[in-house]
Amino acid sequence: MPLTTSREIRLISRPSGLPTQANFSLETVEIKPLEAGEVLVRNQFMSVDPYMRGRMNDGPSYVAPFVLNKPLDGGSVGEVMESRDPALAVGTIVVSSRGWREAFVATSHELHPVSQEIQPLSAYLGALGMTGMTAWAGLNRIEAKSGDTIFVSGAAGAVGNVAGQLARLRGCRVIGSAGSAAKVRFLLSECGFDAAFDYREGPIQSQLSRAAPDGIDVYFDNVGGETLEAALSALHVHGRVVVCGGISGYNEARPGPSNWLLVIGKRLTIKGLLVSDSLSQQAEFESEIGGYFRAGTLKNHETVVQGIENSIEAFLGLFRGDNVGKMIVDLR
Amino acid sequence: MPLTTSREIRLISRPSGLPTQANFSLETVEIKPLEAGEVLVRNQFMSVDPYMRGRMNDGPSYVAPFVLNKPLDGGSVGEVMESRDPALAVGTIVVSSRGWREAFVATSHELHPVSQEIQPLSAYLGALGMTGMTAWAGLNRIEAKSGDTIFVSGAAGAVGNVAGQLARLRGCRVIGSAGSAAKVRFLLSECGFDAAFDYREGPIQSQLSRAAPDGIDVYFDNVGGETLEAALSALHVHGRVVVCGGISGYNEARPGPSNWLLVIGKRLTIKGLLVSDSLSQQAEFESEIGGYFRAGTLKNHETVVQGIENSIEAFLGLFRGDNVGKMIVDLR
Repeated sequence: MPLTTSREIRLISRPSGLPTQANFSLETVEIKPLEAGEVLVRNQFMSVDPYMRGRMNDGPSYVAPFVLNKPLDGGSVGEVMESRDPALAVGTIVVSSRGWREAFVATSHELHPVSQEIQPLSAYLGALGMTGMTAWAGLNRIEAKSGDTIFVSGAAGAVGNVAGQLARLRGCRVIGSAGSAAKVRFLLSECGFDAAFDYREGPIQSQLSRAAPDGIDVYFDNVGGETLEAALSALHVHGRVVVCGGISGYNEARPGPSNWLLVIGKRLTIKGLLVSDSLSQQAEFESEIGGYFRAGTLKNHETVVQGIENSIEAFLGLFRGDNVGKMIVDLR
Repeated sequence: MPLTTSREIRLISRPSGLPTQANFSLETVEIKPLEAGEVLVRNQFMSVDPYMRGRMNDGPSYVAPFVLNKPLDGGSVGEVMESRDPALAVGTIVVSSRGWREAFVATSHELHPVSQEIQPLSAYLGALGMTGMTAWAGLNRIEAKSGDTIFVSGAAGAVGNVAGQLARLRGCRVIGSAGSAAKVRFLLSECGFDAAFDYREGPIQSQLSRAAPDGIDVYFDNVGGETLEAALSALHVHGRVVVCGGISGYNEARPGPSNWLLVIGKRLTIKGLLVSDSLSQQAEFESEIGGYFRAGTLKNHETVVQGIENSIEAFLGLFRGDNVGKMIVDLR
């Protein structure tokens, strides 16, 4: 059956605070016939990520805001179904930033062909994709090295679980925080963390002190807020922080850490991270992480939601902590 | 007339918020006779510095708290008046950390002899001393280089005015903020700043935007608070911040910057600074800054208060912005 229509998610109003379903619509569009050089891609999996919340706001940011009444963008992996580009055969698997839709027409410069040998293909959106690369780039940026004690917040999330696994492979002692007892078990039993705690179980600072009685060398921040403050307290003199995310403040502006002056007393180094700065190192990333993945020493963990009609719920679930590992929407 | 007594300032209770005279006492103590190896130093000048506020609190910090009912410590420069150490002749000028008192007995390992050719000797507490070295170390830590646009807050203060002068000598475009029209004139006419504004004159962010319409590369933070937030807004992508002080929050805890998430979007690098990390580079500092000073290209600026009985007022004046350049107490 030829593919003649595609469903897509559009942003129809800009959310204030936590988005709701009313900010979005699900529309069906016709797929236009291919012109020379074009291919038709059917998405198999799409990515929902916390950073997308920022793109729902208007105003200047590091990525352009989503346009109202247009489909959202985001990472996806799909299959070429029809082709008028001799270089892109039908059946080729491609990664693109054309998520939030079931199918689309594109030219090769928007598509990144990948090997089908990696399974599930959704790993290209997780450990082997942008979130894995974010973890990898963050550890590089803060120069995590063997012997460091590193604390990762949002550790059961897409970036956090890979950051923790990678830090372990590099010889760090790794402590993680996450938002449920099940996630803590996941970190300890499936991701090899040395210690982990549920930040909802008690004061973060005292839980972190118990997990790292001698303090920490590096903090990999995915959440901001009270966890960042606890980490500043636990950091050694000359400690390092990579600020990769601040999900606790994405839906409402939060002040920075109240113990900010520790930056001086401890002579901390704090570095912000966007994976986009590391795109030129993609080959190096794929070689290192792909090697670990094929060897079975680094695992891709994901939570899968079925169907584009549930993609907004999947996205909102990121802010409730519904996901263990990468949140993926299965569009097959 | 032999020196037989010394007056000294003691901390008699720990302040909450802004200190008052009631937290301190002025006591007269006997000077004990010298034992072999000791010298008697009469202080000529002493330093009062904002960081001393932190030492008035109890609890762990990067320097030990001041001890109740003991004299305070701090930088001073004085003259050896009597000596039972053959290596330290009467008349030698020495820098020590035994300020807040008129005279004291010490051994050579507590004293750093300096040349009398530098005048006034109080420069050893300012541009040629710890505050100058703090400015120098801060520019080094954040790698300020020719072509950078750098914003210095607290720019008319002890560290700020030297940081700005040095940044100019290194080829930076230098913008300063300070707390009065007179200080702004001082920055422009005596310190060579390219632009300067009075932070009390209007919203800091818009004043900074006017002074640096193309944004800034480096922020040298001496104050924290709203100025830090404005600087984060003005910084370029990959901008750098050295956090040297946060005087706006020394007397009451302040939250960190409310636009903290810009650290991610702009991939900022933030580094805390304590001059104590740079003590091994003292010779290098003295060579560079001493050279500029002797050549007349870098000036020592100070505000002088007379007499130990006025030293608490001088200290409290730091938080009112009474000083232009280094605040010095003249004990002669």
